[in-house]
Amino acid sequence: MALAEALAELETLLGDRLDTSKGARDQHGRNETWFPFSPPDAVAYPTSTEEVSQIVKICAAHDVPITPYGTGTSLEGHAVPVRGGVSLDLMKMDRVVEVLAEDMQVRVQPGVTRVALNENLRATGLFFPVDPGANASLGGMAATRASGTTTVGYGSMRDNVAALEVVLADGRIIRTGSRAKKSSAGYDLTALMLGSEGTLGIITELTLRLHGQPEAISSAVCAFDTLEAAVETVQMTIQMGIPMARIEFVDDLTAQIFNEANGTDFPAKPHLMIEFHGSESGVAEASERFGEVVAEMGGADFQWATTTEDRNKLWKMRHGAYPATIAHRPGCMGLVTDICVPISRLAEAVAATKRDIIEAGLIGPVVGHVGDGNFHSVLLLDPEDKDEFKRAKKVAAKMAERALEMQGTVTGEHGIGMGKTGYMRDEHGAGWDVMGQIKRALDPQNILNPGKLVEQDE
Amino acid sequence: MALAEALAELETLLGDRLDTSKGARDQHGRNETWFPFSPPDAVAYPTSTEEVSQIVKICAAHDVPITPYGTGTSLEGHAVPVRGGVSLDLMKMDRVVEVLAEDMQVRVQPGVTRVALNENLRATGLFFPVDPGANASLGGMAATRASGTTTVGYGSMRDNVAALEVVLADGRIIRTGSRAKKSSAGYDLTALMLGSEGTLGIITELTLRLHGQPEAISSAVCAFDTLEAAVETVQMTIQMGIPMARIEFVDDLTAQIFNEANGTDFPAKPHLMIEFHGSESGVAEASERFGEVVAEMGGADFQWATTTEDRNKLWKMRHGAYPATIAHRPGCMGLVTDICVPISRLAEAVAATKRDIIEAGLIGPVVGHVGDGNFHSVLLLDPEDKDEFKRAKKVAAKMAERALEMQGTVTGEHGIGMGKTGYMRDEHGAGWDVMGQIKRALDPQNILNPGKLVEQDE
Ligand SMILES: Cc1cc2nc3c(=O)[nH]c(=O)nc-3n(C[C@H](O)[C@H](O)[C@H](O)COP(=O)(O)OP(=O)(O)OC[C@H]3O[C@@H](n4cnc5c(N)ncnc54)[C@H](O)[C@@H]3O)c2cc1C
Ligand SMILES: Cc1cc2nc3c(=O)[nH]c(=O)nc-3n(C[C@H](O)[C@H](O)[C@H](O)COP(=O)(O)OP(=O)(O)OC[C@H]3O[C@@H](n4cnc5c(N)ncnc54)[C@H](O)[C@@H]3O)c2cc1C
Repeated sequence: MALAEALAELETLLGDRLDTSKGARDQHGRNETWFPFSPPDAVAYPTSTEEVSQIVKICAAHDVPITPYGTGTSLEGHAVPVRGGVSLDLMKMDRVVEVLAEDMQVRVQPGVTRVALNENLRATGLFFPVDPGANASLGGMAATRASGTTTVGYGSMRDNVAALEVVLADGRIIRTGSRAKKSSAGYDLTALMLGSEGTLGIITELTLRLHGQPEAISSAVCAFDTLEAAVETVQMTIQMGIPMARIEFVDDLTAQIFNEANGTDFPAKPHLMIEFHGSESGVAEASERFGEVVAEMGGADFQWATTTEDRNKLWKMRHGAYPATIAHRPGCMGLVTDICVPISRLAEAVAATKRDIIEAGLIGPVVGHVGDGNFHSVLLLDPEDKDEFKRAKKVAAKMAERALEMQGTVTGEHGIGMGKTGYMRDEHGAGWDVMGQIKRALDPQNILNPGKLVEQDE
Repeated sequence: MALAEALAELETLLGDRLDTSKGARDQHGRNETWFPFSPPDAVAYPTSTEEVSQIVKICAAHDVPITPYGTGTSLEGHAVPVRGGVSLDLMKMDRVVEVLAEDMQVRVQPGVTRVALNENLRATGLFFPVDPGANASLGGMAATRASGTTTVGYGSMRDNVAALEVVLADGRIIRTGSRAKKSSAGYDLTALMLGSEGTLGIITELTLRLHGQPEAISSAVCAFDTLEAAVETVQMTIQMGIPMARIEFVDDLTAQIFNEANGTDFPAKPHLMIEFHGSESGVAEASERFGEVVAEMGGADFQWATTTEDRNKLWKMRHGAYPATIAHRPGCMGLVTDICVPISRLAEAVAATKRDIIEAGLIGPVVGHVGDGNFHSVLLLDPEDKDEFKRAKKVAAKMAERALEMQGTVTGEHGIGMGKTGYMRDEHGAGWDVMGQIKRALDPQNILNPGKLVEQDE
């Protein structure tokens, strides 16, 4: 690595959009959870694809690592530049390039956030559904193959990205996919880039699929006596083919945390939060049928949010679960888990996880995108207590092992980063080597986000 | 290539499941359309994944090409073993391994056909939606990223495959994906294999997503005065968010061909064929709203197929469009085109294609999965008439160019094989080189289906 030369050339290219100040470096060296601080040598703020390509060429010539950076909300240390070099902050590339309303698509730069995009789209009658809890960048969401509360109804980033523009490790600019709704024209490079966490290329533009804002929406919360009853309700609703836009599980402790943060008065019981989208009559029918399932499963305290305001409150509360949870134990740090299992095993997996948490003497509420079989616990840890951290890591490992035993995955949506490389061999076997082969073929110098996702040499 | 040694070892392994007879070789050297006959040196019929792995190891050791073979219905010469070697016929691996009804999934071997699968599933209340016109194998459908009439409602193979078992070019067996509904655990190797046409690996097992058999179904045909009116009806139906399970366009000539083959009496006009799936009331509502759109667009001759029998007749007719078309010109061969464009450009693309066909003095009915922006013309050619063939290739090239101008794709569903490699540079630019890099990384000897999809060295 010839860092000084690289930085000099980058400064010539970018001027004051190359920032080597302590403030900028510190900001890009931190992360949302427990991974050690590790700052880059500089932060670059490109404003165009061409500039990204030139930055990459300069870094490649001098063997300097590049770690793309969106809003930095990833939870497995993804965006931490563990080998230094350049943090490539894409947030100045934040233009909605073109709304293609007739085709229900939009072209955006990677630094547009999901909230900004939907604000921009409001007047069009269209919206972009994928909604991780944080107001993440669309580039980051694509790079982590993110999903969220609406994935049960609208799919994840895997399903809602039609095309990408990507800068490769040697500076070449490629366009993957097309504006057609489907294609069989060769290897699916779009899908390969989605979830590649900045290790195969830098996403400089996305063509996203949009959906019509639904004519009618109806949301509700209801309480259950046991988590099994709540989860079985989800299973039955799916099997009956009742079309859901959202279905979220929150456990008894999370219901309490909601009360603490929002002044609500939910009983300390497991809850489901549900939403239906469609025509007036379609939503009415779905709500009614769902109500019947809930009644059969002994659900109670049904609260329908009928006004837009009430609905927004409901989902704001859900999206605010993470900070509310952190606030539940002042001064704590969070270790966030994220497994996804076949729906048939979900109740068992959640119950076992809760048992593990209690047995380990930890505080860890459980929430989940249960329509997908995906759930998290946020283990609340005293940063000074090493033993607590060890016990938490053990609980997390047990969850991952259980997910694999059940033929699920160690991460439903957060991704690998550096936190989950240790499970990749167990999940993928020789498939992990195949990922390594692809990485080496496309980035032989290992300059794109080194230290993440694939097996490391050292 | 040390063919004799390889064949001897393969015979020891497979006994009479290695077939070097002229009959078997001829059968596996032919194709559905105009590509030259090119037989393999032998046909291997494995019955297990382990056997596939051993076959590949033997072939790799002796540098003998392997071309996977399902039902051989692909349309761009995909399964033709252009460099000889072994045709790997997977049709003896035809078990439905496990129906996972609770999770709405099924594990199948690659030689199960789509019709056989749905027969097997009938009693479960579940079905597998993807339906290319031919009764193809699920391995072949995955390998070509196939789609069909139901893709507008249920997605393509890209959306309906959860996991794969794959034998790589060196005999390693990997499992991609999982039984979870979603995952962010590293590169999406499932998606990479889907559409790789046997050039990256041999699919030996698939875990497919199933859907609930709908409570209510309603299908209809209706005629339009102009193709523009028919296509605009599709655009409006999509924009209104009316949920469709199928929407197919057939042009005036195809309507006539249907009459010839089925004794129906459709007017010689463009038609739409539509189907709605859902609850009784949902289907009724969709049908009504669609009827209003059709009326507004001047559609007429509405025929609803209300009984299961009528519905089956309707879709059998649609699925039989290809043989019926071939029969329209006795002794002809078909050159099938397959482009996919953004919905907003569809009417223009279809109209221009029809003009090109007429101007070239060719016979070529047009049909399309128009809800996806995808359509085909089948150019009916006298096998002896070289000039006609040249004109047909020119029309096909013009369609492909137009698709790219419109930011669509040169193949919506049939794939590349050897017929469309000539358009890959135009569609993907440097992205095609990336596909080549991946191919070389995973199959450095180039033994898996050589001569297809990626750029060839010679
Ligand atoms: C409170 C909270 C709730 C969350 N809830 C969810 C949830 O429900 N679902 C979910 O999926 N995730 C969730 N997350 C995790 C996180 O929000 C997602 O992973 C998100 O997609 C990350 O986007 P980002 O812009 O913050 O990316 P960053 O954290 O900046 O980067 C993530 C990774 O992508 C790479 N990257 C970023 N931009 C690009 C680019 N343009 N090109 C190539 N690579 C790039 C980075 O190098 C890094 O490897 C949550 C996080 C928090 C803090
Ligand atoms: C009348 C007719 C209508 C059609 N309609 C449609 C349509 O609507 N939609 C559509 O998508 N296609 C359509 N097709 C094309 C064709 O049916 C599809 O491409 C189908 O998916 C091919 O499946 P197959 O089993 O015949 O594969 P094959 O033709 O045997 O093989 C196709 C390719 O896949 C590879 N392959 C096969 N099995 C495997 C395996 N197990 N592992 C790895 N590679 C494998 C082969 O090497 C080859 O490259 C139609 C074809 C015809 C003749």
